[in-house]
Amino acid sequence: MSDSAQTLEAFRHFREKMNAGILEAGNLNINRFFALDTRTYETGALPVKTKELLGLVASMVLRCDDCVTYHLVRCREEGVNDAELYDAFAVALVVGGSIVIPHLRRAVARLEELPAP
Amino acid sequence: MSDSAQTLEAFRHFREKMNAGILEAGNLNINRFFALDTRTYETGALPVKTKELLGLVASMVLRCDDCVTYHLVRCREEGVNDAELYDAFAVALVVGGSIVIPHLRRAVARLEELPAP
Amino acid sequence: MSDSAQTLEAFRHFREKMNAGILEAGNLNINRFFALDTRTYETGALPVKTKELLGLVASMVLRCDDCVTYHLVRCREEGVNDAELYDAFAVALVVGGSIVIPHLRRAVARLEELPAP
Amino acid sequence: MSDSAQTLEAFRHFREKMNAGILEAGNLNINRFFALDTRTYETGALPVKTKELLGLVASMVLRCDDCVTYHLVRCREEGVNDAELYDAFAVALVVGGSIVIPHLRRAVARLEELPAP
Amino acid sequence: MSDSAQTLEAFRHFREKMNAGILEAGNLNINRFFALDTRTYETGALPVKTKELLGLVASMVLRCDDCVTYHLVRCREEGVNDAELYDAFAVALVVGGSIVIPHLRRAVARLEELPAP
Amino acid sequence: MSDSAQTLEAFRHFREKMNAGILEAGNLNINRFFALDTRTYETGALPVKTKELLGLVASMVLRCDDCVTYHLVRCREEGVNDAELYDAFAVALVVGGSIVIPHLRRAVARLEELPAP
Repeated sequence: MSDSAQTLEAFRHFREKMNAGILEAGNLNINRFFALDTRTYETGALPVKTKELLGLVASMVLRCDDCVTYHLVRCREEGVNDAELYDAFAVALVVGGSIVIPHLRRAVARLEELPAP
Repeated sequence: MSDSAQTLEAFRHFREKMNAGILEAGNLNINRFFALDTRTYETGALPVKTKELLGLVASMVLRCDDCVTYHLVRCREEGVNDAELYDAFAVALVVGGSIVIPHLRRAVARLEELPAP
Repeated sequence: MSDSAQTLEAFRHFREKMNAGILEAGNLNINRFFALDTRTYETGALPVKTKELLGLVASMVLRCDDCVTYHLVRCREEGVNDAELYDAFAVALVVGGSIVIPHLRRAVARLEELPAP
Repeated sequence: MSDSAQTLEAFRHFREKMNAGILEAGNLNINRFFALDTRTYETGALPVKTKELLGLVASMVLRCDDCVTYHLVRCREEGVNDAELYDAFAVALVVGGSIVIPHLRRAVARLEELPAP
Repeated sequence: MSDSAQTLEAFRHFREKMNAGILEAGNLNINRFFALDTRTYETGALPVKTKELLGLVASMVLRCDDCVTYHLVRCREEGVNDAELYDAFAVALVVGGSIVIPHLRRAVARLEELPAP
Repeated sequence: MSDSAQTLEAFRHFREKMNAGILEAGNLNINRFFALDTRTYETGALPVKTKELLGLVASMVLRCDDCVTYHLVRCREEGVNDAELYDAFAVALVVGGSIVIPHLRRAVARLEELPAP
């Protein structure tokens, strides 16, 4: 990653710490949203791998680096290979335009921190 | 569809007429973009069906009704069934939030105009 | 409203019909989202009136006309008066910029269909 | 324009009527915003023609059809020709991606209602 | 805050320094916008506390961390307590979807730097 | 720039390294997009200087700091002076609203790293 960005390890640490703090605050609607967010990517009519690719592309066109990082990690865990990822990146790039490019650069840098499937 | 919205037939007619007019205007960069837009959804490392689902979810979270209509038509042509579509809708809804709901309503209304796979 | 837009009655009819169809489709995650969406605006630490104003301004800056209509109806039911609404509109306008103006025009047109509190 | 869209005449009528209503409501901050919005496109270090092109492209990438219509009218009044408009459209398309296309189609349809410079 | 983010102190210093530089540049329209931005949150038909909550939720759904920080500081100054803030966060989360979550995490981290009311 | 942001040198280094990596990955559609992105800003019916201003304002309203940096560099190379830049900033600010302000602050900080024309 570039110098000003978090390592994957720092991202994970911050994410887990803050998620725990948010859930402990006890706002029922927020906690329900977090539970729903998890369930939405579980196996259904579409396989988990496809759902994670959907989450990845949605995150890229909405330009959320942390969301992209999360779904890249999950995509790799589900066995998505480089060629498949770049196909998904291409859809995000064409749908979302050149403003997606900085996020694509950071996504590709993030991939270097993740083991290939 | 609701009274104020176009039928699928009217959407198709307007889309084809205007696309033809845009391409005839002869701006090279615009014409290249249109060609690239088509190629991006062709078979690659990911199958066409998956790419169309990616296009659908990207269109929903970016809240583009015409884009959603286009990808719904293509998803049906690729054999995506109702349960798979609703799984994709759920990802779009959770990623994009309640502002996606009006577009989901119009997507489901549009489905009534499309033959089931 | 302008000629091309739905009346409030048509909006309500379409919204209720499609929401019913979506819920009947039986996708658990979508149904949970709809339930959560309703609960979020119920009385909590913040009163319902404030929550509806929050929903209104969030809908305006995200430029979702149907969402604006929904929250305008609810704001009126909660007794929000014109001066309060215009204060909320001003926040949305300054935060979101001139692209909010077309939605502001449609919101003010919609208000003419709603009884003053 | 497509069947479901307003004519330029209807757009102008609705815009003027609602703007008048909004200004009469007397919210000072909203009225100041409207005044500022007008002044921003007056001659400055950049000529009016360039400013209107900036407003047009900003409106396209933010996907605001009414804003696009307004700036198209103003661009034509400032003598922007077809080739210049398409160059601006190309920038909007590449920056904003394929979700800009439906707005491009409506912009080109709108142009047919406007006298060439 | 996470390692890659600014402390509140650094945010304030940079914000004040750059705002001063921008105002000194002397572009009248920009300076008017800054003045209007300040006035919009002053007491009107809605109390300042409600306006700051509106600004906070608008900033969260538009995913502007610096804007969220600013309105969190102002909300605390206006006496908004934790339960009220989390109610506002819940509205932002449900309206804006899971892409709001990274901003929610940073907002909650920011709160640790702010004295409770 | 603020402490947490990249210097222009670091931005350039990261951008060039990652762009090279992306192009080497060999996804044809992504590579075509990158080529099209470059061509779009070349001389056409509109001069390069105007196109770069269009790219700058589109980047600001879409709130992409890296894109803003890129177009600021190019604007300076094309001889855009401070008064012209601030006129463009004003359009972006009025169209996009106060959420543009943090990006305006970073743009003005970036300018300090760039030689005046």
